[in-house]
Amino acid sequence: MKTQSEIGATGEWELHRLALSDEDKAVRDWFYDKMDQEGLEIRIDEFGNMFGRREGNDPDADPVLIGSHLDSQPYGGIYDGALGVIAALETIRSLNDQDVETRRPIEIVNWTNEEGSRFQPALQGSGVWAGTHDIEEEYAKTDQKGTALGDELERIGYKGDHPAEPAHDYHASLELHIEQGPYLELEEKQVGIVTGVVGFYWGAITFHGDANHSGTTPMHFRNDSLVAASDVIGQVRRIAGTVGDRTVGTVGYVDNQPNSINVIPDEVTMTFGFRDPSDDIVAEAKELTLQQAEAAAEQEGISWHCEKRHDSKSVDFSELCIDAVEQAVTELDYDGMRIFSGAGHDAVHVANVCDTSMIFAVSEDGKSHSNDEYTSWDDCYVAANTLANATLELAELV
Amino acid sequence: MKTQSEIGATGEWELHRLALSDEDKAVRDWFYDKMDQEGLEIRIDEFGNMFGRREGNDPDADPVLIGSHLDSQPYGGIYDGALGVIAALETIRSLNDQDVETRRPIEIVNWTNEEGSRFQPALQGSGVWAGTHDIEEEYAKTDQKGTALGDELERIGYKGDHPAEPAHDYHASLELHIEQGPYLELEEKQVGIVTGVVGFYWGAITFHGDANHSGTTPMHFRNDSLVAASDVIGQVRRIAGTVGDRTVGTVGYVDNQPNSINVIPDEVTMTFGFRDPSDDIVAEAKELTLQQAEAAAEQEGISWHCEKRHDSKSVDFSELCIDAVEQAVTELDYDGMRIFSGAGHDAVHVANVCDTSMIFAVSEDGKSHSNDEYTSWDDCYVAANTLANATLELAELV
Repeated sequence: MKTQSEIGATGEWELHRLALSDEDKAVRDWFYDKMDQEGLEIRIDEFGNMFGRREGNDPDADPVLIGSHLDSQPYGGIYDGALGVIAALETIRSLNDQDVETRRPIEIVNWTNEEGSRFQPALQGSGVWAGTHDIEEEYAKTDQKGTALGDELERIGYKGDHPAEPAHDYHASLELHIEQGPYLELEEKQVGIVTGVVGFYWGAITFHGDANHSGTTPMHFRNDSLVAASDVIGQVRRIAGTVGDRTVGTVGYVDNQPNSINVIPDEVTMTFGFRDPSDDIVAEAKELTLQQAEAAAEQEGISWHCEKRHDSKSVDFSELCIDAVEQAVTELDYDGMRIFSGAGHDAVHVANVCDTSMIFAVSEDGKSHSNDEYTSWDDCYVAANTLANATLELAELV
Repeated sequence: MKTQSEIGATGEWELHRLALSDEDKAVRDWFYDKMDQEGLEIRIDEFGNMFGRREGNDPDADPVLIGSHLDSQPYGGIYDGALGVIAALETIRSLNDQDVETRRPIEIVNWTNEEGSRFQPALQGSGVWAGTHDIEEEYAKTDQKGTALGDELERIGYKGDHPAEPAHDYHASLELHIEQGPYLELEEKQVGIVTGVVGFYWGAITFHGDANHSGTTPMHFRNDSLVAASDVIGQVRRIAGTVGDRTVGTVGYVDNQPNSINVIPDEVTMTFGFRDPSDDIVAEAKELTLQQAEAAAEQEGISWHCEKRHDSKSVDFSELCIDAVEQAVTELDYDGMRIFSGAGHDAVHVANVCDTSMIFAVSEDGKSHSNDEYTSWDDCYVAANTLANATLELAELV
């Protein structure tokens, strides 16, 4: 049987395993078998989230939940969330191999559609499960070909019978994921103890100017939307560098109309996004950007508006879970550091249900979502071992 | 029979009459009939350029050539070059109606594919005729559907028998066209005496940076191609305003990759263009832009290159023709002004063959290439009357 990194492989270090595709089905089948081999009690919920339960000595105790996601970005890397699911499975296997008993049950999970590439939004399965999203609305979401998510879930056989909600209370949850940033490597650390996830704001600014002939329209007659947008693009870079020491700000998307070499652009849409551990700093950065948009539009004599695309408050993880991870790192004598996540994760939704934290594995050069994504075997082992030990701590060794 | 503005009409003030389309064929048929009705000797050349000749008293004298083009931009206006062809036809009709004899023959012309929307480049028919372009290369040009220009020319029945080259020497040439800019209206003038056409440079700069996760990549780790491009976009605006008092500079086209809200852009291509009556100023503006690109790329730690898209020297029209137009304006007691054209015209190619000038009709608000294009009936009349009188002057009334 294939190992997970070969399922949907498009290269030695590359996966194309979009949510609810045939490749996603294949990796789910593989994961199902692995859970079955370990004697776990398997539940598939109505949104395709997959759970496997290992009983504790006290079956009425609230379980500990560990896991991540097996879907990938288009032509993404082989680690990403998959490492977290494999490490959760490996935790179970180690406990089974060594006949270890815990007081609390342990459940492992593979969340549906974390990436949000084929169907939006990202973190969809955990969001439905945690009650943030309405399941019917999410079933109706379509991919670029117009295929509904609900139909795809049924087609691949993963629309389960269990309600897409917490089956019971959970004591705690841990998610192992690659960092996707350079901080652990920069600080020469082996593993990250994740204390929270940054808040972020995504908006789209559209400028409305006048299309005109680029040769015959004098400069002072122009109402050029692209000039205004370019002002703001530069300012987003500068604002990120002034409001906070860990703030990031990005313009990733531009739509320039009519996009002809010989015509002054009349309608330009640009997205912008800021992330920071502090929601106040994110709000300040957004506000400064809108001021710059207003100034740029006034200078070009054009109108503009901003549309919110996403607004997510920062999350502080629970001390209970952070301490469990930190204790595991200390006991294992690893060189770890506390770190805030710059990316969103399923753990953000799970944190609304129970105490939660995350463990980050080192990402070489901070690369992810491409075949440049790499975590050394040693770093995978360190993170997985940290997960296993922190899970034991939370599940209470008998 | 339809009047020309109804042929290919997509609205009361809008035409969609792309070169060598069915609509272009229809307007060509209409123009052919009109020339035939006036007893002109009609020649269609191998590139579809249409000529109609009215003999002079001295058939061996070099003729005067007048006309423009009947093709339109996609959903363009009803005036543009069509006004210049109609005015040339009207000049012939007036001479016929009043039995006026001239020493020199007068030829009227409709050039093939001036607009360059469906097939590139623009000014194609006059360029082949003047020897700037190779006819076989231009026949092979394809539209977006992959249809070859030569095949379309045959399909609509306008691949003529006459060589696509000057049939003989020409004494002089005049082209009436709408200004497509706001200067005549701003100066409250009735008609423009065109002394030349600006030179221009078009280039495309591509920046090569690194795509990375917008949330997890610290600002000082980024190599953001869009930030570099936006610097240069703003600078093009500023450079145009500093190198000359009539310089225009435009970034019309941007391609941003991968163009995802959540990914730092790695490859961005932006075009830029400058126009000025002085070739030195155009060269200086281009040089300053490349310096800005170098500085912006260095600041972002990325590479870049520039590709030339078009380079056209400025054209000074002939004093003979400019004087003839100016004399007509004076004799008719019109309020005219000398003006440089900011757009390219067939007259640029014709100027390589014989003495040439142009007449500009007022463009309301300087608009063109859309249904906002408008020239009042009075302004059409003034420009057409100027053309008729200047043509008579050059063709030597008997």
